[in-house]
Amino acid sequence: MKVMIMGLDGYLGWTLSMYLSGRGHEVCGVDNFSRRKNVEEIGSWSATPIKPIEKRLKTYERLTGRKMEFYEGDLVHNDFTNLVIRKEKPDTIVHLGEMPSAPYSMIDLEHCNYTMMNNIIGTNNILFAMHKHDPNCHLLKLGTMGEYGTPNVVIPEGWFEIEYRDRKDRLPFPRQAGSWYHQTKVHDTNNIMFACKIWGLRSTDIMQGVVHGIVTDDMVDDDLLTRFDFDEVWGTALNRFCAQAIIGHELTPYGKGGQTRGYIALRDSMQCLTLATESPPDEGEYRVFNQFDETYSVNELADHVVKVSGELGIDAKVWNIENPRIEAEEHYYNPDHENLYKLGFKPTHSLDQELKITLSKLMEYKDRIEAKRDRILPTIYWKK
Amino acid sequence: MKVMIMGLDGYLGWTLSMYLSGRGHEVCGVDNFSRRKNVEEIGSWSATPIKPIEKRLKTYERLTGRKMEFYEGDLVHNDFTNLVIRKEKPDTIVHLGEMPSAPYSMIDLEHCNYTMMNNIIGTNNILFAMHKHDPNCHLLKLGTMGEYGTPNVVIPEGWFEIEYRDRKDRLPFPRQAGSWYHQTKVHDTNNIMFACKIWGLRSTDIMQGVVHGIVTDDMVDDDLLTRFDFDEVWGTALNRFCAQAIIGHELTPYGKGGQTRGYIALRDSMQCLTLATESPPDEGEYRVFNQFDETYSVNELADHVVKVSGELGIDAKVWNIENPRIEAEEHYYNPDHENLYKLGFKPTHSLDQELKITLSKLMEYKDRIEAKRDRILPTIYWKK
Repeated sequence: MKVMIMGLDGYLGWTLSMYLSGRGHEVCGVDNFSRRKNVEEIGSWSATPIKPIEKRLKTYERLTGRKMEFYEGDLVHNDFTNLVIRKEKPDTIVHLGEMPSAPYSMIDLEHCNYTMMNNIIGTNNILFAMHKHDPNCHLLKLGTMGEYGTPNVVIPEGWFEIEYRDRKDRLPFPRQAGSWYHQTKVHDTNNIMFACKIWGLRSTDIMQGVVHGIVTDDMVDDDLLTRFDFDEVWGTALNRFCAQAIIGHELTPYGKGGQTRGYIALRDSMQCLTLATESPPDEGEYRVFNQFDETYSVNELADHVVKVSGELGIDAKVWNIENPRIEAEEHYYNPDHENLYKLGFKPTHSLDQELKITLSKLMEYKDRIEAKRDRILPTIYWKK
Repeated sequence: MKVMIMGLDGYLGWTLSMYLSGRGHEVCGVDNFSRRKNVEEIGSWSATPIKPIEKRLKTYERLTGRKMEFYEGDLVHNDFTNLVIRKEKPDTIVHLGEMPSAPYSMIDLEHCNYTMMNNIIGTNNILFAMHKHDPNCHLLKLGTMGEYGTPNVVIPEGWFEIEYRDRKDRLPFPRQAGSWYHQTKVHDTNNIMFACKIWGLRSTDIMQGVVHGIVTDDMVDDDLLTRFDFDEVWGTALNRFCAQAIIGHELTPYGKGGQTRGYIALRDSMQCLTLATESPPDEGEYRVFNQFDETYSVNELADHVVKVSGELGIDAKVWNIENPRIEAEEHYYNPDHENLYKLGFKPTHSLDQELKITLSKLMEYKDRIEAKRDRILPTIYWKK
């Protein structure tokens, strides 16, 4: 299959490009390097010293003999988006080309509106270009489990059958997103669902849990490393805990720490995205996969990091701090995640297994984490 | 109360400004005249020959002694939005300042993205300015009944209590909007709900049915007329039928004509918006009103226009044409609408009563409708 990866230079995008190429798919991709710039904007960097895209691609080709076509450009510029899709006519577009940080979107109005524009308009441009030039293409879109919020009922995979006041229907499950960033994913979900309905496009909307991990088997050379963010804006809670353990800082769960989310290892996320790519939906079908393996509360995450750090000789402590976000800190959480298992998904690495690999690898980059120690604790508040 | 009307120059905005001013409220407002420009763009005009805003305001002041402050500017430009809200610090913002046409948003990608940008960014700018300068202000936001689509169950007012797989919760009712324009209203709904949650803002989100009517008691001079659109882009089905009856064209319901929606007379819409203004929600409260009086299918609308036209000596005929939209043409439709009645809403004009007034008034503008006869039948298709 020919697969076009939007956001090929990102954490998931770079990793997936190698993963899919290794399975024999023809991979091309697009990036505007906004992630690199936006991380720099807040004075941070990736723990792993990532290489420029040219170097990544050259080394990958040298080591594997496989070439990936790359286009620098911004999906918000429709001339560009339209051009690459018309030129490449991919079988699958994996859309990872969005601004992915909740705190970044919450900095101020400018960052909120940038996130809205970037994510919504970029996705619309892809939808219209598919409709025009590539109507059989499968749009594999990265959403987030965060679209659902934390309702007091089971979270189905996108849709649910309900009986309400003596009548029945199958309806989209209500979304209650917790940041401007998460809201843009909900807006995309609605727009994509509509495009599938009116134009017969096919799409898989991935409600992904938090991805953790730093390496996959493709990263056989340091030139091929993917990024690993650990600051308050771009790092997940788990990444921050790992970084804190490495530099001897207390691990800092926000608030009571009962916030529970779904988690999946980076390599297993690659497996899931590949399964979805290789089993596309039908014409006009809009399907949703809840893509995660295990659920943990933030306190549980911290405990796991303490435990695995201990096995590596690091003595880590936990210090719950004031929560900069507005979110439920104790809640029910029980999302379905059967669809990917039905396609054959077999998780390979539990949290502890992957954590051991991550923490060991991170030790190599202790100095780079230490240099940005002041970027880990929260400064962005949901309510000022 | 001091009320700021976003979109003061529009169909509802102009009418509401006089209505509220007449009840003793201090009215100010904002407009960028996009409606006038966008109607001109597609080669159409209002059946009523509306006056420039300066003339409207001057005549209104001359006849009533009441002045309304007006600011020309675009809500998408945050410097402007921030400035007017900081300067006026209104008790209520009635946000009617959005691009309101489904077909306009469906013309092409540019019109889709313009609608997204205009509606989402404009609303976000208002929310942030309220949070910063006017946190007790009540945002009375015009949404649409079209956000819900046509589910096979009763449509509650925004929220519903459900039991799902043996657990219970109160959740936002799922939205299934039928055009890019309608999608932007859903996106706004999600963004506003979130702003109320995190910042304690107060908002009423009006899921309004189709408004019909051409005059209110305030329009005592031709300078004070509001607009009446009747073309395929800016006219509602009912307005198009009225215009067609006036010029002796068959009335043209789309498809089977079973599409059923809620309807409310212009003057009764004013009454509702006033009730909501004068009974604001609590701090942090996000409430939803389904604002309509009666429900009719498109075929029933056509039949009513035929009947009332007959009473006025006009012989109108109905001709169902191919549906340019993708929508259910036969469906269940039963939305709740109790909240406004609880606040004291008393509908004054049924469809037939208002239609008689509308058709009589429209006869004065027969030549202006005739001149744009070629702009009534559909040319914009949901699927090309």
